[in-house]
Amino acid sequence: MNLLLLQDEDFLDPGRVRLTGRRLRHVTEVHRARAGDELAVGLLGGALGRGRVTRLDAEALELDVVLHQAPPPKLALTLVLALPRPKVLNRVLAAAASLGVARIYLVNAWKVEKSYWHSPRLGEANLLLQRILGLEQARDTMLPELHLRRLLRPFAEDELPELLRGTLPLLAHPAAGAECPRAVADPVTLVIGPEGGFIPAEIELLARSGCRPVRLGPRILRVETVVAALIGRLF
Amino acid sequence: MNLLLLQDEDFLDPGRVRLTGRRLRHVTEVHRARAGDELAVGLLGGALGRGRVTRLDAEALELDVVLHQAPPPKLALTLVLALPRPKVLNRVLAAAASLGVARIYLVNAWKVEKSYWHSPRLGEANLLLQRILGLEQARDTMLPELHLRRLLRPFAEDELPELLRGTLPLLAHPAAGAECPRAVADPVTLVIGPEGGFIPAEIELLARSGCRPVRLGPRILRVETVVAALIGRLF
Repeated sequence: MNLLLLQDEDFLDPGRVRLTGRRLRHVTEVHRARAGDELAVGLLGGALGRGRVTRLDAEALELDVVLHQAPPPKLALTLVLALPRPKVLNRVLAAAASLGVARIYLVNAWKVEKSYWHSPRLGEANLLLQRILGLEQARDTMLPELHLRRLLRPFAEDELPELLRGTLPLLAHPAAGAECPRAVADPVTLVIGPEGGFIPAEIELLARSGCRPVRLGPRILRVETVVAALIGRLF
Repeated sequence: MNLLLLQDEDFLDPGRVRLTGRRLRHVTEVHRARAGDELAVGLLGGALGRGRVTRLDAEALELDVVLHQAPPPKLALTLVLALPRPKVLNRVLAAAASLGVARIYLVNAWKVEKSYWHSPRLGEANLLLQRILGLEQARDTMLPELHLRRLLRPFAEDELPELLRGTLPLLAHPAAGAECPRAVADPVTLVIGPEGGFIPAEIELLARSGCRPVRLGPRILRVETVVAALIGRLF
């Protein structure tokens, strides 16, 4: 945690916050802060700034905060991911948020096991927490949008063409003929399949909707690794 | 696991292997293979190929194997990493191996907690296993070299200049003036600090040894994320 991310309900009055729970524990156990110390803070959806600890005990952390600095810019990137295994989902969401992805769609695919859609990790509280952990890591305050689409075909046919408009429409696909471009100037929509890949009918569906299959290399990478590597390459 | 990685001691005779333990469990529980099925295999340090299941029960998996294909090329990259937290170490090693890093040095730094050097995860068996998991993910057979250096100064002064020779010598440093280059043709040595970064004296030491500080952007990323993003950018 490189930033204490604040929400409106944390404010006692303008310029003063009281935190409990996870953030209190982290500042107590990891930062080992004391009254008078300064910590990096940010308001979810707002500015970055500094907080001076005025109280820290077993019950609460209180800070006087000044918010004065813009958060880092988001990447002009919409990520469309086949829903990963629950174990991987948390890491992918946090990594994508830390990297500055603007918008994430989690979609179905043939090789996404049905049980993944029933994972408790898809609960709203967890989906928010994982993105917040990513923002806290990267010192960002702007939550990436997150959308779940349990049916691939209507998403690809009805929504995706509009998402792709005005963006470089890339589909990561190991068997593609074209190499993934580098250092692009345009916004990007990047579609990444499940472990085991999209099946041919899905590749066709996505290509018909406007996606351009590109490959990254001969290696099969974990989804959180491929997301970071493609972002490093594209931006 | 996208590849069953074989070792010399697995061979019953040339062309026939017997596997137990972790690989047997994985093929039983995840691949759910049966006699007659074909699986991707590779010999650690050798060629890739195919294995046909001839026996699969609670005791052993046996395969007839043919090894005929070269593994993917390694990246011309030496990674010098401040030793990460034990929890992170496994993920970083597996990710680096999956990405094709040729050589890894784990080094000390001021902000590496001393206890990290006493973690059981630094045992040889685990260091080998994590790299093997990365190779199995990426369908590679060539283990990245791994070296541990518990003292930064003698490493930086005595070994690093020789490692840097003939390579682009990069030090990831958020405060650097220069941007990290892209799509380089030369081999690279890439030095990445601990959570919290190298201290100024360490930056100076590494710069005196020939490293060039470069920055990636305003975001603070987890080490496994930054490794993948920098590799995507450089290669």
